[in-house]
Amino acid sequence: MSNPPRKIVVIGGSAAGPKAASKARRLDEHASITLIQKEADLSMASCGYPYYVGGVFDDRNQLICTPAGIVRDPVFFDKAKRIDALTRTEAIAIDRAAKTVACKHLPTGEIRTIPYDKLVIATGASPLYPQVPGNTLDGIQTLHKIGDADALRTLRDQGQVRRAVVVGGGLIGFEVCEALHLAGIHTTVIEKTASILPFLDPDLAKLIEVYVRGNGADIITDNGVAAFLGENGQLTGVKLDNGTELPCDLAVVAVGVRPNVGLAREAGLAIGELGGIEVNEYMQTSDSDVYAAGDCVECKSLITGAKVRAPYGDLANLQGRVIGQNLIEEGSARFPGVTHTGICKIFDYTVGFTGMSTQSAHAAGFTDIETATVSGLDIPPYMQGKLMISKMLADRKTGRVLGFQSIGPGDVSKRVATVATAIRGQLTIDDLANADLPYAPPYSLALDHVIVAAHVLENKLLGRVRGVSAAEVKQRVDKGADCFLLDTRTPQEFEDMRLGIGETLVPVGALRDRLGELPEDKDKEIIIYCHSALRGYEAAAMLEARGWRNVKIMEGGIVAWPYPREK
Amino acid sequence: MSNPPRKIVVIGGSAAGPKAASKARRLDEHASITLIQKEADLSMASCGYPYYVGGVFDDRNQLICTPAGIVRDPVFFDKAKRIDALTRTEAIAIDRAAKTVACKHLPTGEIRTIPYDKLVIATGASPLYPQVPGNTLDGIQTLHKIGDADALRTLRDQGQVRRAVVVGGGLIGFEVCEALHLAGIHTTVIEKTASILPFLDPDLAKLIEVYVRGNGADIITDNGVAAFLGENGQLTGVKLDNGTELPCDLAVVAVGVRPNVGLAREAGLAIGELGGIEVNEYMQTSDSDVYAAGDCVECKSLITGAKVRAPYGDLANLQGRVIGQNLIEEGSARFPGVTHTGICKIFDYTVGFTGMSTQSAHAAGFTDIETATVSGLDIPPYMQGKLMISKMLADRKTGRVLGFQSIGPGDVSKRVATVATAIRGQLTIDDLANADLPYAPPYSLALDHVIVAAHVLENKLLGRVRGVSAAEVKQRVDKGADCFLLDTRTPQEFEDMRLGIGETLVPVGALRDRLGELPEDKDKEIIIYCHSALRGYEAAAMLEARGWRNVKIMEGGIVAWPYPREK
Ligand SMILES: Cc1cc2nc3c(=O)[nH]c(=O)nc-3n(C[C@H](O)[C@H](O)[C@H](O)COP(=O)(O)OP(=O)(O)OC[C@H]3O[C@@H](n4cnc5c(N)ncnc54)[C@H](O)[C@@H]3O)c2cc1C
Ligand SMILES: Cc1cc2nc3c(=O)[nH]c(=O)nc-3n(C[C@H](O)[C@H](O)[C@H](O)COP(=O)(O)OP(=O)(O)OC[C@H]3O[C@@H](n4cnc5c(N)ncnc54)[C@H](O)[C@@H]3O)c2cc1C
Ligand SMILES: CC(C)(COP(=O)(O)OP(=O)(O)OC[C@H]1O[C@@H](n2cnc3c(N)ncnc32)[C@H](O)[C@@H]1OP(=O)(O)O)[C@@H](O)C(=O)NCCC(=O)NCCS
Ligand SMILES: CC(C)(COP(=O)(O)OP(=O)(O)OC[C@H]1O[C@@H](n2cnc3c(N)ncnc32)[C@H](O)[C@@H]1OP(=O)(O)O)[C@@H](O)C(=O)NCCC(=O)NCCS
Ligand SMILES: [Ca+2]
Ligand SMILES: [Ca+2]
Repeated sequence: MSNPPRKIVVIGGSAAGPKAASKARRLDEHASITLIQKEADLSMASCGYPYYVGGVFDDRNQLICTPAGIVRDPVFFDKAKRIDALTRTEAIAIDRAAKTVACKHLPTGEIRTIPYDKLVIATGASPLYPQVPGNTLDGIQTLHKIGDADALRTLRDQGQVRRAVVVGGGLIGFEVCEALHLAGIHTTVIEKTASILPFLDPDLAKLIEVYVRGNGADIITDNGVAAFLGENGQLTGVKLDNGTELPCDLAVVAVGVRPNVGLAREAGLAIGELGGIEVNEYMQTSDSDVYAAGDCVECKSLITGAKVRAPYGDLANLQGRVIGQNLIEEGSARFPGVTHTGICKIFDYTVGFTGMSTQSAHAAGFTDIETATVSGLDIPPYMQGKLMISKMLADRKTGRVLGFQSIGPGDVSKRVATVATAIRGQLTIDDLANADLPYAPPYSLALDHVIVAAHVLENKLLGRVRGVSAAEVKQRVDKGADCFLLDTRTPQEFEDMRLGIGETLVPVGALRDRLGELPEDKDKEIIIYCHSALRGYEAAAMLEARGWRNVKIMEGGIVAWPYPREK
Repeated sequence: MSNPPRKIVVIGGSAAGPKAASKARRLDEHASITLIQKEADLSMASCGYPYYVGGVFDDRNQLICTPAGIVRDPVFFDKAKRIDALTRTEAIAIDRAAKTVACKHLPTGEIRTIPYDKLVIATGASPLYPQVPGNTLDGIQTLHKIGDADALRTLRDQGQVRRAVVVGGGLIGFEVCEALHLAGIHTTVIEKTASILPFLDPDLAKLIEVYVRGNGADIITDNGVAAFLGENGQLTGVKLDNGTELPCDLAVVAVGVRPNVGLAREAGLAIGELGGIEVNEYMQTSDSDVYAAGDCVECKSLITGAKVRAPYGDLANLQGRVIGQNLIEEGSARFPGVTHTGICKIFDYTVGFTGMSTQSAHAAGFTDIETATVSGLDIPPYMQGKLMISKMLADRKTGRVLGFQSIGPGDVSKRVATVATAIRGQLTIDDLANADLPYAPPYSLALDHVIVAAHVLENKLLGRVRGVSAAEVKQRVDKGADCFLLDTRTPQEFEDMRLGIGETLVPVGALRDRLGELPEDKDKEIIIYCHSALRGYEAAAMLEARGWRNVKIMEGGIVAWPYPREK
């Protein structure tokens, strides 16, 4: 080589950082690559912490090893990747003029200055923490670092904790809730807003709430933490905004993260309005020799074009990989943006989402959207199909798919991946309604759940059916509104389970012969439902054809009813 | 209603036909709709037959009932859908001038003429049958009609059959093979061509072959059936093209289907070159008052634009639904075409595909394609991830994804659905390489298998790596070719399992220090492999950077090696 080797310095040694460094190494065997990591460990699979804490596996090394079982320590990075990984070393200042990074070896306090040609900032994010009295008591922690996972796992193994509170009803909050519950700890999740899992529409979130309670964990919504209570420096309880006191030996805080941008800000790099480092599609900061990726950056929404924060492990790796390429071949790779796709397991339910929720669509200025809520099985009943309840969103004018949320014991993950890809390809409801997916009975219905959701949404877009949500029906019933409720299932189904909200039972197959049981007033509101909504929809078509003008179906059917039932 | 009701006649009562009729009913409560069905049953889930035969479930009604458990018989069609379903009734002629269909009630022989305004032909397909001596013996059958399923189920329950032969190594052949094997019957699949499962590239097909044999069923390829052998009219064996005789008590023929176009042809409707009824995107035949859908038609490939046959249950339903709309609102719905996506379960493996195989891409005139074979887990090792081996294809010039095949115990179905949707959206490898998919440890790796496949294929497209298939390596080894084989796994992995084809072991982490063990001649072909190919790829980059000019990795690694191993 005639040129001196490129000097690459990467700050942050968990996901985005090591990925950028590793990719750069594969493209340039001769570059000098230094990875600076504050913590003792490298390449931690943070997303696995809840499963380690919950006892799904016992070997902590699984969190930091390659698929072949080799721990990704500095020796591994040296031998396998010729990357100089400095652990327990904090980058404390970036001098962009001199092109150096000042680092402090934490055990010794020794300061070192490392020169760079290209710098990568992958400092991640830090957990937010409630600024309330008592927040320094022992017994309160987050689950963010591997040390947190170690501590929680120890608590699990010791079996002393009886009651825990999880502060924050987001993805990580519920993963922690499950892990603690599996350890035999009675757990209550506290959510400040009215609805858990903010990326879900409230109706689906409500179903998860009911499900989690049914599993024995508790949830309190609309109520924040006012104070942590303790004795002798040890947590004994949590006091909520409304005054309730919950005794507990452990509180795990999971109320979101804030990008770590201190270093970048002090170095004069542009910080975006959402608090993350600004980057272009090459993942370059406002200094073209400095890249940034992962939880510390803002990225672009592929749906709205707006900046968003998307602190996800998959994206950190993708962005790191893009940087790895650009470090060696400038401008050779772009990160196009995100569709906001995520997933989480809560007991035996999966909760997945991609694109926009109704709320976020409205906030982003999509004023004319249509939604459809659909309950259905993943595979046929004779193959033991499991339920999924999903909501699909589209832009009314263009028909473009804007979002999809799905929950339930069924194979939600496949459907979310499918719709995420459809959103990426800017497909319309019409496209999805005729999708050629892999069909065989062990894997889907003849018309997959995603296709049925597109069909129902298409019907709504074309005005062929009008829907009403379970929440709206409940409101009407509670207010004693003058509407006619029609259950179109079989007598046997009605016997086994029913809402008991004043409904009349007329099975869909008998409806044409029993029209006399329906309201004479053709303008009276009729709300129809069945198990999933399929037969309600057929019944609605019959009635509309016979002159009833105000017919609606309760979307998602009985299985999407989150309120108490008579039976 | 001032107009007289529309008269709609539908011929064929299984998937496409009832779907068209049902959709039409929802859009027009007043139309007269008649469904003509030759068989005694209606709405049969044919795709479920193998699972009924195999004993996955016992209640035959599951094959013909709604999700609520109601058998879709003529009473159901009358009551729930006001569709006049005439079973055991064969349509025997279409008079397009008079706009009538002549039907024969099979039990009585009575002939009736039914007038139509709009006609739907959904006559399906018939199984092909080998025209060889002995093909009328008892003990030979297909699995196409529900009566076939009944017969095979009875054989299973009686437990008398010891040995069976399945003629045809396609999807249905292997589903039957599994069902018979589960019933304790020793089963041999006979495939005339060199490779089973024709939509797979031969290397993946070969892996399935090995897997099926490992499960105790047998496969013979490159060998057709020359004759069925028998005594007293009863099958006793099968004679193959090469003379081999296989004794057996049962032969199930599954060598493909031919569209049922007799009625359409005699009515003067245009039949395509592939033998199916010609339709436009509204699913209209050459007579605009006659529609056709399902196994009896030809449809358009969304990838090549060419006509293809795609006899799949999901497509029959989608096409039927499009027709249902057009029957009532002419020109209101289009069926865009197919991506050729399918799937099947073979023991604990899934076999899925979408788009083109290498062979079909070449045949379609894609002369410049690139492929990548990737072995990997569906979810992390610590979550008990399972293997998938996949091949992704792209057009070299545009980068457009052309196809994806995936096999293994892992969650293949999700990945195939994802790539099918990507192909539908005309995404490129670059798009897939940065896909935002739902990631959490119970559902995928941080970089999902599909993304890794796109990364590897991107690397190949950019010339960053050169691949060689297991088959090519085997050929080289068998010919004693002068190449250097390098295994880059750990000594422990080498101890546990190895190819034993003359390879040298140098773990990737030691490679930079042990370059002396490599060939001095920098032009010598070096073929590197590891477990999956990941470490082989890193090693290749190291060697190329040090001047070796002819370095390749064996794609898919050891787990994609279908030949005998030393260990
Ligand atoms: C419990 C948990 C569960 C999760 N589950 C999922 C999931 O299921 N799916 C998903 O997509 N995402 C999940 N995530 C999010 C995912 O882990 C993060 O998005 C990802 O780790 C971000 O990677 P990163 O490299 O940007 O930052 P990090 O992983 O946070 O790494 C940044 C590293 O930089 C180091 N560092 C910071 N500042 C300095 C400095 N000045 N000098 C040196 N080193 C420094 C830090 O010590 C840290 O190790 C989860 C996160 C947690 C905590
Ligand atoms: C064992 C098996 C497994 C399968 N597995 C899968 C799978 O996993 N995935 C998948 O996608 N596809 C699968 N298929 C294919 C799928 O079943 C068909 O594509 C689908 O049934 C086609 O529907 P159709 O309505 O076009 O035709 P059919 O289902 O064949 O229905 C046509 C009907 O028309 C009737 N008919 C024909 N001519 C006349 C006439 N002149 N008068 C009156 N009636 C007439 C026939 O009796 C028949 O019932 C499988 C098929 C079989 C047999
Ligand atoms: C692992 C890590 C160090 C990145 O290193 P890496 O060398 O890029 O590792 P990978 O295993 O991802 O991939 C290595 C290469 O092999 C390729 N590869 C991966 N799996 C492969 C397979 N099964 N077959 C063939 N090639 C494969 C990849 O495409 C990649 O090449 P490319 O990026 O040049 O295209 C970094 O991602 C990390 O630290 N991860 C752990 C923490 C983490 O991700 N946390 C957040 C989520 S929990
Ligand atoms: C079932 C069959 C008769 C079609 O009848 P159908 O009335 O269209 O029945 P479906 O259950 O598919 O759907 C009814 C309607 O309810 C809607 N629907 C389906 N599931 C729903 C759900 N879970 N929630 C709300 N609506 C739903 C559908 O979108 C459809 O409406 P649309 O087409 O007007 O949009 C026909 O498909 C058939 O005979 N199938 C069995 C055989 C078969 O498919 N074989 C091949 C594969 S094995
Ligand atoms: Ca994601
Ligand atoms: Ca399909």
